[in-house]
Amino acid sequence: MPPVEITAQHNPLRDPADRRLNRIAGPSSLIIFGVTGDLSRKKLMPAVYDLANRGLLPAGFGLVGFARREWADEDFEKVVHDAVKQYARTPFDEDVWRQLRQGVRFVQGTFDDDDAFERLRTTLEELDRTRGTMGNHAFYLSIPPKSFPQVTEQLRRSGLAHAREGAWSRVVIEKPFGSDLRSARELNDVVESVFPSESVFRIDHYLGKETVQNILALRFANQLFEPIWNANYVDHVQITMAEDIGVGGRAGYYDGIGAARDVIQNHLLQLLALTAMEEPNSFDAADLRTEKEKVLAAVRLPADLALGTARGQYASGWQGGAKVVGFLEEDGMNPESTTETYAAMRLDINTRRWAGVPFYLRAGKRLGRRVTEIAVVFKRAPQYLFAEAQTSELGENALVIRVQPDEGVTIRFGSKVPGAGMQVRDVTMDFGYGHAFTEASPEAYERLILDVLLGDPPLFPRHEEVELSWRILDPIEEFWATQGRPEQYSPGTWGPDSADALMARDGRSWRRP
Amino acid sequence: MPPVEITAQHNPLRDPADRRLNRIAGPSSLIIFGVTGDLSRKKLMPAVYDLANRGLLPAGFGLVGFARREWADEDFEKVVHDAVKQYARTPFDEDVWRQLRQGVRFVQGTFDDDDAFERLRTTLEELDRTRGTMGNHAFYLSIPPKSFPQVTEQLRRSGLAHAREGAWSRVVIEKPFGSDLRSARELNDVVESVFPSESVFRIDHYLGKETVQNILALRFANQLFEPIWNANYVDHVQITMAEDIGVGGRAGYYDGIGAARDVIQNHLLQLLALTAMEEPNSFDAADLRTEKEKVLAAVRLPADLALGTARGQYASGWQGGAKVVGFLEEDGMNPESTTETYAAMRLDINTRRWAGVPFYLRAGKRLGRRVTEIAVVFKRAPQYLFAEAQTSELGENALVIRVQPDEGVTIRFGSKVPGAGMQVRDVTMDFGYGHAFTEASPEAYERLILDVLLGDPPLFPRHEEVELSWRILDPIEEFWATQGRPEQYSPGTWGPDSADALMARDGRSWRRP
Repeated sequence: MPPVEITAQHNPLRDPADRRLNRIAGPSSLIIFGVTGDLSRKKLMPAVYDLANRGLLPAGFGLVGFARREWADEDFEKVVHDAVKQYARTPFDEDVWRQLRQGVRFVQGTFDDDDAFERLRTTLEELDRTRGTMGNHAFYLSIPPKSFPQVTEQLRRSGLAHAREGAWSRVVIEKPFGSDLRSARELNDVVESVFPSESVFRIDHYLGKETVQNILALRFANQLFEPIWNANYVDHVQITMAEDIGVGGRAGYYDGIGAARDVIQNHLLQLLALTAMEEPNSFDAADLRTEKEKVLAAVRLPADLALGTARGQYASGWQGGAKVVGFLEEDGMNPESTTETYAAMRLDINTRRWAGVPFYLRAGKRLGRRVTEIAVVFKRAPQYLFAEAQTSELGENALVIRVQPDEGVTIRFGSKVPGAGMQVRDVTMDFGYGHAFTEASPEAYERLILDVLLGDPPLFPRHEEVELSWRILDPIEEFWATQGRPEQYSPGTWGPDSADALMARDGRSWRRP
Repeated sequence: MPPVEITAQHNPLRDPADRRLNRIAGPSSLIIFGVTGDLSRKKLMPAVYDLANRGLLPAGFGLVGFARREWADEDFEKVVHDAVKQYARTPFDEDVWRQLRQGVRFVQGTFDDDDAFERLRTTLEELDRTRGTMGNHAFYLSIPPKSFPQVTEQLRRSGLAHAREGAWSRVVIEKPFGSDLRSARELNDVVESVFPSESVFRIDHYLGKETVQNILALRFANQLFEPIWNANYVDHVQITMAEDIGVGGRAGYYDGIGAARDVIQNHLLQLLALTAMEEPNSFDAADLRTEKEKVLAAVRLPADLALGTARGQYASGWQGGAKVVGFLEEDGMNPESTTETYAAMRLDINTRRWAGVPFYLRAGKRLGRRVTEIAVVFKRAPQYLFAEAQTSELGENALVIRVQPDEGVTIRFGSKVPGAGMQVRDVTMDFGYGHAFTEASPEAYERLILDVLLGDPPLFPRHEEVELSWRILDPIEEFWATQGRPEQYSPGTWGPDSADALMARDGRSWRRP
């Protein structure tokens, strides 16, 4: 059977009203290692279905699971089916599913089993023939980093890492990208010894979020914001990623990692880069990465790390009306652990745009509420014509990008209080992403998987960015390693006192989002 | 009986929680000429009561009506009582009313009756003695301008225009302040020959509106807006005052006046001045007026008035499901009238801040909807990194101050449309004055009457501003007078075609608010 000819017109999954037609993926297979894991079941499989349902996958598409389980294709098909039914965001459509299932395959094996990779190769060749996937293969390594060397070596040995002429072979890896600069380099050397750097896609799912991408639209499609987006007008920036849950069942994984390595190194520093970077020449991957790397390279640490950083561990206590255990008492946790569940730091950026404007980053678990936001806090007006009593309730202007939940943008500014006087008080105006658009927001993984299949990498950090992030974090981690046990903080609060003291020394305070 | 001693502590009407305590009026009487008119009944009397109810009037307060009717004090008291019950915005409180009524007096007479003014003097002296109003008198001329000479002369002759040592005497006049520069000067000469200019309060009730005052707070209490409030970033400004009703019973008054004299000369040019002026040294009357006058003096008319202005008359037709008559068929209207019910014009402002930024003003009756707003429309971003198709639904950024109804501020900007692509589309964020504050907005007349009693005149236009406004309008009116009948427009539309053509020639279009 000759390869199915794929055109937009002939794509049976296409929604003719979809204006994103030009971004339909070409013929290809997605191969998931670690397909029995939570991420695969809750995010990856449903995202593949949702893409198909939105008409963004080609007719010639294969979805291949690789795992140790003794499954037949039909068993795996049922797993995908159930995962889609339970977790997909778009309605279940039998026609879409029937189309998709025809490309579903399962390969049983372990990472050290050469034969299994031979079977994988045979399976992909079969898909190329019967489904018209045309030799294009994306390998998604949803597996622990320690298995990367083995799997990438198998992909090399079996010839799968090198696509045939006119086709492509890509590899997708998830954070953590190492635990410091040295290990990140080792990891990278392993992966890039097999795959060329342009074929390596590092997923930071935060970058797939609509509100993160909207930072680019907000800054560069508008005239309103960019003129005041600099040290002349901005007092400081706060980037917060707060969770209200503890580490729970992830205690074993989390110990030795901590808040800074877990989310600041990747999510928060990426948010910082998108907020602080100069306007790129284009949104192409190379131009975007150039600007992100430039601003990350200009980041400077506090002169005194004891004063400019803070960390903590959540203690036991009450949260949301329930008794919760402290970090050190979590199941499977080393009670002597010095891993932080809260990290905060002041970073400065030595560019003309940002010199003198601190970026405060914080991330933590068991905080007051789940929220991720970027708050650009502006200086006060250079003078007030109002009497002091009239502005006592007036704070600083702020523009807040809410990444999650309730995605949107809020502006805080001063307005006259109704009445005969001239009191001025803070008010807010709000834009809610969910309310403004009838279009459903794609899940971050949908966007990212589609980008992998399209080979469109602007949202994926390059190894250089990962290195730059570790260069920022390594001295802090090394300093913390000498400081013994972190300060305890009560669950449901906004972190340890030392974090508040860090801000207070600068005459500022953390937002209570 | 000695004058009642008035202190904040002893003021029985005072609300102790009111932070505007320092703005309580001192002992005084308000004397209303034309007390049987609509304005007095619907606005002035209720505003006086509301001020009392809010604790902003002193215990020593008198309210004196002057009219031809054969009323006793009790009759007038009932008129005030009924007006308050029907039109006041705050709840009726027997204690407040009992306090207020003790100072209510009526003087029967005509403007040519010297004895009546003698009786007025006697009445005010009696109030000074019994109510402790201390010789402070505000005369509110809610009468046609043609009666100003007579009444002011009577006030001079009876000695009421000149306050005794340590007291004050003020006069309040309403628009129209003339019908052109010459008549405005004549009117001013009449009033200021009797009252010194600092004692003349010209009421433009638009300036008493909270949202108008909020322009000052918005611009000068914030850091966000002022940096982009200039020709570098602003493309143009649209100031709109649209009414959905016709002239109705006011046909006789309106004929020969028209939209430009009726509202552009005063309301819209004042809004322009507040929007465009430089930051004053303070919000004191003198500093504020200095800046308003400076910017009004810098206004330049279109070189070709035929192209840079437009006018129209509403025709008969359907509006809101009802048949409505055209302007020329209104009761009592001269069917040959060339008076415009719609006026639009482009004004330029020759200052460094605004050179090259047109201010488009329009006002009209029987338009699509009732709305007054100032729209600051920004230039497009200097470049888009987005593909052309991605920004096809992206307009200009705009900041819109809604003066009425639904008072508030809206910002329009571009945001990413959810989806795998990078479409950018206009969205809005909104601040609603009514939603943001629990404080009730005082009615414009409350604020303005209180300002008269306090002698606090920043919101009142000085004669110089009135003159400057007529200097702008006179050439336009003279040009229109040579142009015959205005263009007809259908009720419920947004005015005549010539107004759209005016904008189209500049490559712009009117907002559809």
